[in-house]
Amino acid sequence: MHKIHRFYKIAAALLLLLSFSLADEGMWTFDNPPKKQLKEKYGFDITQEWLDHVRLSSVRFNDGGSGSFISPNGLVMTNHHVGLGQLQKMSTEKMDYVKLGFYAATQEEEVKCVDLELNVLMEMENVSNKVLGAVKQGMNDKEAADAKKAVIAQLTKESTEKSGLRSDIVSFYNGNEYWIYKYKKFTDVRLVMAPEQQIAFFGGDPDNFTYPRYDVDMCFFRVYENGKPFHSDNYLKWNTAGAQDQELVFVSGHPGSTNRQQTYSQLEFARDYSYPYRLEYIKRMIATLKEYSKLGEEQSRRALVQIFGLENAQKVWKGEYKGLQDAKLMEKKLNEEKTLREKINANPEWKKQYGWAWDSISAAIERSKKYFTRDTYRGLSGRLFSLATIIARYPEQMKKPNGERLPQYQDANIEATKFGLFSRAPIYTDLEKIQLSDRLKQMAEGLGTNDPYVKIVLNGKTPEEAATALIDGTQLGNIDFRKKLFEGGEKEITASTDPMLVLARKIIPFNDETMEWNEKYVTSVIGQAAEAVGKARFALYGKELPPDATFTLRLSYGQVKGYPMNGTIAPSITTMFGLYDRAYSFQNKGDFELPQRYVDGLSKLNLKTPMNFVSTNDIIGGNSGSPVINAKAEVVGLIFDGNIESLPGRFLYSEDLNRAVAVHSGVMIETMRKLYGASKLADEIEGVQPAPEPPKAAPQKSVKPTTKKKK
Amino acid sequence: MHKIHRFYKIAAALLLLLSFSLADEGMWTFDNPPKKQLKEKYGFDITQEWLDHVRLSSVRFNDGGSGSFISPNGLVMTNHHVGLGQLQKMSTEKMDYVKLGFYAATQEEEVKCVDLELNVLMEMENVSNKVLGAVKQGMNDKEAADAKKAVIAQLTKESTEKSGLRSDIVSFYNGNEYWIYKYKKFTDVRLVMAPEQQIAFFGGDPDNFTYPRYDVDMCFFRVYENGKPFHSDNYLKWNTAGAQDQELVFVSGHPGSTNRQQTYSQLEFARDYSYPYRLEYIKRMIATLKEYSKLGEEQSRRALVQIFGLENAQKVWKGEYKGLQDAKLMEKKLNEEKTLREKINANPEWKKQYGWAWDSISAAIERSKKYFTRDTYRGLSGRLFSLATIIARYPEQMKKPNGERLPQYQDANIEATKFGLFSRAPIYTDLEKIQLSDRLKQMAEGLGTNDPYVKIVLNGKTPEEAATALIDGTQLGNIDFRKKLFEGGEKEITASTDPMLVLARKIIPFNDETMEWNEKYVTSVIGQAAEAVGKARFALYGKELPPDATFTLRLSYGQVKGYPMNGTIAPSITTMFGLYDRAYSFQNKGDFELPQRYVDGLSKLNLKTPMNFVSTNDIIGGNSGSPVINAKAEVVGLIFDGNIESLPGRFLYSEDLNRAVAVHSGVMIETMRKLYGASKLADEIEGVQPAPEPPKAAPQKSVKPTTKKKK
Repeated sequence: MHKIHRFYKIAAALLLLLSFSLADEGMWTFDNPPKKQLKEKYGFDITQEWLDHVRLSSVRFNDGGSGSFISPNGLVMTNHHVGLGQLQKMSTEKMDYVKLGFYAATQEEEVKCVDLELNVLMEMENVSNKVLGAVKQGMNDKEAADAKKAVIAQLTKESTEKSGLRSDIVSFYNGNEYWIYKYKKFTDVRLVMAPEQQIAFFGGDPDNFTYPRYDVDMCFFRVYENGKPFHSDNYLKWNTAGAQDQELVFVSGHPGSTNRQQTYSQLEFARDYSYPYRLEYIKRMIATLKEYSKLGEEQSRRALVQIFGLENAQKVWKGEYKGLQDAKLMEKKLNEEKTLREKINANPEWKKQYGWAWDSISAAIERSKKYFTRDTYRGLSGRLFSLATIIARYPEQMKKPNGERLPQYQDANIEATKFGLFSRAPIYTDLEKIQLSDRLKQMAEGLGTNDPYVKIVLNGKTPEEAATALIDGTQLGNIDFRKKLFEGGEKEITASTDPMLVLARKIIPFNDETMEWNEKYVTSVIGQAAEAVGKARFALYGKELPPDATFTLRLSYGQVKGYPMNGTIAPSITTMFGLYDRAYSFQNKGDFELPQRYVDGLSKLNLKTPMNFVSTNDIIGGNSGSPVINAKAEVVGLIFDGNIESLPGRFLYSEDLNRAVAVHSGVMIETMRKLYGASKLADEIEGVQPAPEPPKAAPQKSVKPTTKKKK
Repeated sequence: MHKIHRFYKIAAALLLLLSFSLADEGMWTFDNPPKKQLKEKYGFDITQEWLDHVRLSSVRFNDGGSGSFISPNGLVMTNHHVGLGQLQKMSTEKMDYVKLGFYAATQEEEVKCVDLELNVLMEMENVSNKVLGAVKQGMNDKEAADAKKAVIAQLTKESTEKSGLRSDIVSFYNGNEYWIYKYKKFTDVRLVMAPEQQIAFFGGDPDNFTYPRYDVDMCFFRVYENGKPFHSDNYLKWNTAGAQDQELVFVSGHPGSTNRQQTYSQLEFARDYSYPYRLEYIKRMIATLKEYSKLGEEQSRRALVQIFGLENAQKVWKGEYKGLQDAKLMEKKLNEEKTLREKINANPEWKKQYGWAWDSISAAIERSKKYFTRDTYRGLSGRLFSLATIIARYPEQMKKPNGERLPQYQDANIEATKFGLFSRAPIYTDLEKIQLSDRLKQMAEGLGTNDPYVKIVLNGKTPEEAATALIDGTQLGNIDFRKKLFEGGEKEITASTDPMLVLARKIIPFNDETMEWNEKYVTSVIGQAAEAVGKARFALYGKELPPDATFTLRLSYGQVKGYPMNGTIAPSITTMFGLYDRAYSFQNKGDFELPQRYVDGLSKLNLKTPMNFVSTNDIIGGNSGSPVINAKAEVVGLIFDGNIESLPGRFLYSEDLNRAVAVHSGVMIETMRKLYGASKLADEIEGVQPAPEPPKAAPQKSVKPTTKKKK
């Protein structure tokens, strides 16, 4: 699973130190594609037309995934697990889109998503000079950071107004480049087809992040504009023969973040502080959700998507943590850093400009350790608490100049913030209560009941009592109440006695203090120093190496290729035979139970159909749903995961073992046509003109649409 | 693959230090079964009848494998890779039993093996008092060893004469127990059925020692006595439903050797000396054979079985070496040793008797290092050279008293030695030449051309010239020549000018010197010390723990059970779907190419049929071909391999990860009936009385026997 995981991201994901291997490494920005490598290694000439076409066919799912246009009529392909959040939100006790899957045989039957925003990258503008130019001689770290922040807010605002496009300022190469990425925004997105989660996530948590694999992790949406399907000439044509062993393939998508440029001291901090804490925390969250699931079928349904996301993150973190604990990997990183520093120190000018940076980062990290425990245990979560915080901060934030506000309150983002604030997505208060209660318990255990923050939160009650009072007492679950508060502005908000809002107001000063201290003594220091490290690398290598991932559009290249695994070799491509092997090897039970459709439909299928495949493409969470395309920019597959060996890829890429895992284009068409009665959709995807009369009536008729009963 | 590998076994496989885990560990002798563990863990009461029945149904393949009787008419089941040597020996350019497989539809069509000896363990007699009593106060290590050797030869001879059975004296618990194992011997063994090697060894070297797996590694022989099928009431009934997930299962077979009782200094020696050398050597041998294979189809056929055996050994040794390099495993072994020594030293009497033993072993190992390089490079190999050595030593050996001869010349073994000496097995002189030439080259490189041994062997020639002269000049490839020499006795042998025999005669003094030195300063010292270590353990634990494996009949127990693998879980049982997945994942090519029969027969098969499975049984090389039986002693599977995690099992068993891999009884019957037209054999195995008229004529007819064309 390569969906971005939003829980407890380490704040400082910006610091750069590139590894030296060229291999098939790199998530390249579209302004700087790996032309030389492609030419030398694969004999492929990449053209500007090719790049523009692929960029404009690529789609970002703003809640953390990728996708692509695959028909002229706004049809978007992504993963089931990227669409999952929306499927869950549109589900009710009566119709479970997650469990049963869905197919809209006509456009009228397509179902509108609750709060999905898709983006297409229309333009990229380099504004490095403007942003970096804001920093004047003699400014300290904090002043420099503030100066840049102000320019960024201004540029964002101007671009939004001028272009009418969503404009995000993004930085690359440790803050050595700044660009405005301008996106066309779609919010009318409708569900066309989703298989059962059972088959999309076949093998469950055990098989997640492993290969050989047998998942149909696909989901199709249609983008509408002004009530009509969005027409675009930029869409990816389909190749049903699909990915072939050894073939050159590309992935165009939105990798979330990598930490390949972090300094050694940052990796040590991650290994010794962040990961142990995170892993303990997430284990507890999953245990709580699983307890809740046991209460009944509906509870189980409600918890499913959260458990899915948390187990996914847990597996990722365990893999990343394993990488950090790998003495060889750490030694390699240390040696890279030593080499870089030696080269810098060998040049007196460079030494003066950049030589100090690594020690500055180490010192900032040392400082941050002091409050690590306090700050991690103080974190609160839950949807109701988040809503309260967003609303509570609104008056104070809107008084500030645009450039000094927190990002979500800035002019360019306030619409998106409201979109989330007024989402119709259901809130399960029974679940929120259990989770908040456990979190408060953990906080009290970790910090003691004398901690001033804990005192305010518990307010003399036990964790259970406090959680019950907060959740039962708040009206924030009601959209109209939220609207009323928000529209009432400062007066209404500060006067409200809603207990969750009251708590949020009380807590804000603590959080502000923490944030300010961190920004002054940690974040801005690390930011400036990392920029220097990035400059040092720039001085040596220029843009020959790609920047760390930042949830912006990237191109990666690679080859369909097996790898050594488990004492033997993993094939580059699996077949549908393997799906049934894995299912019946586990008695068709539990995580390996097939949807009934697959049991009944076995004899209809060509089991030699390619199912999933691996390639050397360098990807990471956020790339989920990215198309895998061949040299002609035709779809040959759909990224949905990485192998277990790819997880330390956050820190270091290895072409020997690191593999991207994709759904093969063949199995998508095979299952649509033979199991889902979705030949119309398959025709649209394959670009087949519906024949006036079906040439082969008999076999067509034998494929019964089985989706009817599901709606 | 769990066939014994005979190449370069470390001499001292006798030294004992048991690991403490009880788990499902242990290859138990039939006089001391794990009654308590079976009762406590599985609620199973093992009876003497059960043990006798299983023992008398078990068969040893003397060239390094196991088997069992599975019908009252002498039908023996084993692995294809155990029968492989015989299949190769009976093959010619015209009929390749290895490649094409074979099925004898009638008894008349069964093909007699070239030189296969099978043994059944009829009696076990404890002679510990007699052997250990031969050692008198005041004897030194060498004298003690010689005294025991003399008694052993005497006892063997007496038992052979008295019982008429093959009588082997075997020692257990580091020489703390001695038993006579009396075997009924069969030498008229005929091939009944063998599938194509392609399916028996599907996945080739890559999949060897891995799981999930999809092999039909089976082979069936029939034992004859006085020209008629041997009748026995002791045979294992068949259970076609076969092994079930979580079921208690037993393995009765002949594990070759384990080194779990070696001291830490011995493991270090293996890690730092033996394994690096062996791995380098075997790599070179494989490379030579592969070069030879390229010369043509017939050459490729000739080299196939050797390559198979060497690659198998290479994979085993790599796995074992990995275990030795695993710091955690080594630490565990060291801690076990420390604990044992502390307990011994805490008791003044024990300390005096056994406390010295570990240091004595370390010292002997230190001494042995002096000649390690010399002795390893001096080793010569090849079938012609072995024949020459056996013949050359014959006169001198037969003059000695029985007890002082090398084992193969002792009265009890001389028949078996002749059986091998006069075998009709083909000798490929072109291949022998290439291998000898490379070995001489390696020797000259390793020792230099001034080494006296090298001087004699090369005799002033280059390695190629020397090898050519020896192989072209010798007549030992001719059975009649060998017979003439042997029957002519001392006069004929010492007078012969056959160049290979001349070389053997010249080399013997060097080898004798090495052997004597080793016996005096290394082997006998380690032997006595190891016996003391064994006694120390006996003093503490008695026979609660099983002895190391010694290629004698053992019983292991365990459970059909998956395990964590590759970031996910491996199922306990695979299905035939998986066979086709793996084949077509690799485009049905190379190591993953299916026999044509399987391609054509796909639609006839029930692909849900269980194929291979894993269990926690503790086994090792030599167990290949062992039956897997349920609590009722019915066949549910056929051992053929261990998983990659089981390889360090030579030194340490781990129930978490160590798995035995078996062919499921279901797939054997399914393929016999549906692909091989071998319903008659399947009926015999399943105990089905052939109906007077086939009840379902049509489906029976549709399964065409495809073996006819192969003969």
